[in-house]
Amino acid sequence: MLTYSFTDTEGLSLYEYIYKCIKEDIITGKLTANEKLPSKRVFAKNHGISTVTVENAYGQLMAEGYIYSEPKKGFFVSPIENYIEDTIIKEPYKPESSSNTRNSHGSQNIGRDWADSSSFYNYNSDDQHPVIDFISSKTPADNFPFATWSKIMRQTLGEQEEKLLSKPSAGGVWPLREAIARHLHDFRGISVHPEQIIVGAGTEYLYGLIVQLLGRDKTYGLENPCSNKIRNIYQSLDVKTMPIEMDDEGILSEQEGLKESDVIQISPSHHFPTGVVTSISRRYAILGWANESDDRYIIEDDYDSEFRLQGRPIPSLFSIDTSGKVIYFNTFSKTLASTIRISYMVLPYSLLERFKSALGFYSCTVSNFEQYALATFIMDGYLERHINRMRIQYKAIRDQLIDQIKSSWLAPYISISQENAGLHFLLDIDTDMTDEQLKEKALDMGIAVSFLSDYYDKTATGPAYLSDRHVAVINYSGLGSSGVDLRL
Amino acid sequence: MLTYSFTDTEGLSLYEYIYKCIKEDIITGKLTANEKLPSKRVFAKNHGISTVTVENAYGQLMAEGYIYSEPKKGFFVSPIENYIEDTIIKEPYKPESSSNTRNSHGSQNIGRDWADSSSFYNYNSDDQHPVIDFISSKTPADNFPFATWSKIMRQTLGEQEEKLLSKPSAGGVWPLREAIARHLHDFRGISVHPEQIIVGAGTEYLYGLIVQLLGRDKTYGLENPCSNKIRNIYQSLDVKTMPIEMDDEGILSEQEGLKESDVIQISPSHHFPTGVVTSISRRYAILGWANESDDRYIIEDDYDSEFRLQGRPIPSLFSIDTSGKVIYFNTFSKTLASTIRISYMVLPYSLLERFKSALGFYSCTVSNFEQYALATFIMDGYLERHINRMRIQYKAIRDQLIDQIKSSWLAPYISISQENAGLHFLLDIDTDMTDEQLKEKALDMGIAVSFLSDYYDKTATGPAYLSDRHVAVINYSGLGSSGVDLRL
Repeated sequence: MLTYSFTDTEGLSLYEYIYKCIKEDIITGKLTANEKLPSKRVFAKNHGISTVTVENAYGQLMAEGYIYSEPKKGFFVSPIENYIEDTIIKEPYKPESSSNTRNSHGSQNIGRDWADSSSFYNYNSDDQHPVIDFISSKTPADNFPFATWSKIMRQTLGEQEEKLLSKPSAGGVWPLREAIARHLHDFRGISVHPEQIIVGAGTEYLYGLIVQLLGRDKTYGLENPCSNKIRNIYQSLDVKTMPIEMDDEGILSEQEGLKESDVIQISPSHHFPTGVVTSISRRYAILGWANESDDRYIIEDDYDSEFRLQGRPIPSLFSIDTSGKVIYFNTFSKTLASTIRISYMVLPYSLLERFKSALGFYSCTVSNFEQYALATFIMDGYLERHINRMRIQYKAIRDQLIDQIKSSWLAPYISISQENAGLHFLLDIDTDMTDEQLKEKALDMGIAVSFLSDYYDKTATGPAYLSDRHVAVINYSGLGSSGVDLRL
Repeated sequence: MLTYSFTDTEGLSLYEYIYKCIKEDIITGKLTANEKLPSKRVFAKNHGISTVTVENAYGQLMAEGYIYSEPKKGFFVSPIENYIEDTIIKEPYKPESSSNTRNSHGSQNIGRDWADSSSFYNYNSDDQHPVIDFISSKTPADNFPFATWSKIMRQTLGEQEEKLLSKPSAGGVWPLREAIARHLHDFRGISVHPEQIIVGAGTEYLYGLIVQLLGRDKTYGLENPCSNKIRNIYQSLDVKTMPIEMDDEGILSEQEGLKESDVIQISPSHHFPTGVVTSISRRYAILGWANESDDRYIIEDDYDSEFRLQGRPIPSLFSIDTSGKVIYFNTFSKTLASTIRISYMVLPYSLLERFKSALGFYSCTVSNFEQYALATFIMDGYLERHINRMRIQYKAIRDQLIDQIKSSWLAPYISISQENAGLHFLLDIDTDMTDEQLKEKALDMGIAVSFLSDYYDKTATGPAYLSDRHVAVINYSGLGSSGVDLRL
């Protein structure tokens, strides 16, 4: 029986402390693979705490892949000890895809209803309003902390004249790199030295640098599906790419695509577009893959990890990597504004010297003005406050959206999933219509939406994840602070 | 006999008008190749104008390669009509390298004197002061129009909140592209549509885009010598490069390096480090080379053309190209501050559609804030005023430097050349010492300086321009507004 003492919770909240204790017991092997955990109710009763607290802790452990649940059986420890033996796990566990269970509604499907829907035709003939955009990932203007940013820009211009005109190293100005190191520590539990941080004008630009650093002769494995822009970039950089199929735990570690890749780019914290959070066992399997050869590297794109709406952010792959195999990417275009072109990568020490000697001649692509302004913005705590404010706002928009959908005529035909990890969720639609037809219908209703099928690599031959379903990708980060009325 | 009427000078100054008339007569063939022009004195007398005016006009025509001079014989028309026949000229004319004539000082050379120089030892033991840097091309802080820039940034932040957060197209925000088009028209006589202008975070970044646009399978010809950074960039982008030898008229159009190249990158207005201004006949020969194949293109890097210190700026290759073969590059890092990372390229229409379809998915790498601020800075006339102010300042620094050198003990051993075209000049030293020894001596005196030999492609086999001489490259753009005391 699992028993923990709560006399010293190390400054953590109770749920975080329970999460930490169980996680440590799993990592150290005290809890073994597939061992059953006490039910939430029993655990809560035994420790004299609320069921909600246990639920939160279990939820976080589930999200990170430390435990899995089986319907009507309970919670079990994931087989992560395989990593310790440095082998790729042979039989991945099959956790219940808890939020992905579809509503049951017999043979009825949306096509008929939608085509007949009087509300649809009424809506369209009534009036015109701007298209609601669920495709774009741009941040709306009213999210940006304009007053604060202006104040800091003015302050920066006033105080740091000399510094603003001193050419920084290729990695960026030092105070910003220090600030990012602190931010990474506080927000993501990642401990890095500022010199490991390379600032650049957008993630897209940094991909170009990475290809120059790791070599054009390498094969770059990309998740399938993935953002088309990422595929475009690698194609435009004229390197060989390889689609890597995935399931609801992340990329498949036994897959040919992975074996044939030298460098892979993945988003384990929150995959776009599937929303999948890579399980901890899969994470270790991927690290195991990287460790099989000196030339293998993992690019971890952590683009919206700050906006996990429930539980603590998932630990990054970078932070559990002990072999210098992970290059961590993140951007402020997502947290601040898409028109602020500041991203960064964190190089493992194994690559830092190579970067300095091979690419140190480059000038940093972000102007000093914005680098110093952002450094102040982070160090003075504005970024943290902004993220917290935005997280609350995004949560409200998401809840409002989901409420609208669930209380509409659409409800019987849809199921919603992956709504906690970041700024989009999935809408699985039961229909005989094609995705193209669905998109057209949506556009007629003033809604621009993309489907998972838009993000598959057309050249891939393997079985694509969820490709048998009609899954709309609802990206709500572009909606304003007041959300939208879908008029469903 | 050359006779022009000055009843309508079309709003031009007299010297500009004479320059224009003679240039037109050369282009239209009224004046033929190698035809002798009247002497300055005779021309002035016949037209009842001052000799200085004629001198200015002839000087500009010389600088642009329309005419050449022969010692004690006079001025002659350059053979540019060959371009009209679309053939590469067979016998390039040999103009006198007027400013490159060395002082005569018998067998004496600098090595002995320098080593013995008591002033050198006295200087070194007396005190320490920061190294005077003639290598860096960074702009010093006190050149930057800080107050104006701050005012415009504040204004931009205050007025354009919505626009600042709207994602621009890959080419940049429209008002900046309009402003650049206007600037190019007013300053460089280049007429382009704003949509041809692609804004990016530094020229280095734009080179990467160009390679993605034109293809990695192309061979990129680079001037030899050239800036090592340019060579580093192309090497890092992993494309095949080819050194192209040059003489005092620009790259050699009959050279193997050019024939084997598909795309060449040149700075015809002012080559770094040699300071050579490509002659007009050579320009047409290069355009002729590009026209021989559909896949050939010319990247014209016009990095410091604004700072021509005498006469009007040389017309760009882009402006005389009628076949859509030239991609024009320029940067504001040179005119404003090296820490402002805003450069741009102008694509010919032949490449614009290709750019939009192949690379239009990229986000512009410059933040909107600085794009809008720069647009205002240009449109409100601040850039023009700043350039004029800087040109006066640079001229004063250059004159002060040259005076110091010419009045020092160094005078008998040196000759100065290429001092009018931009922000560096050449110091040709008569010595038995090696360039490395000279550099060490200079560093002992607190002076960091590079030599032409630092910029040669070590893999090149052809005869390198001026490689038999010891030529220091004096880059004075990094000196502050008050110049320096060389303490020679």
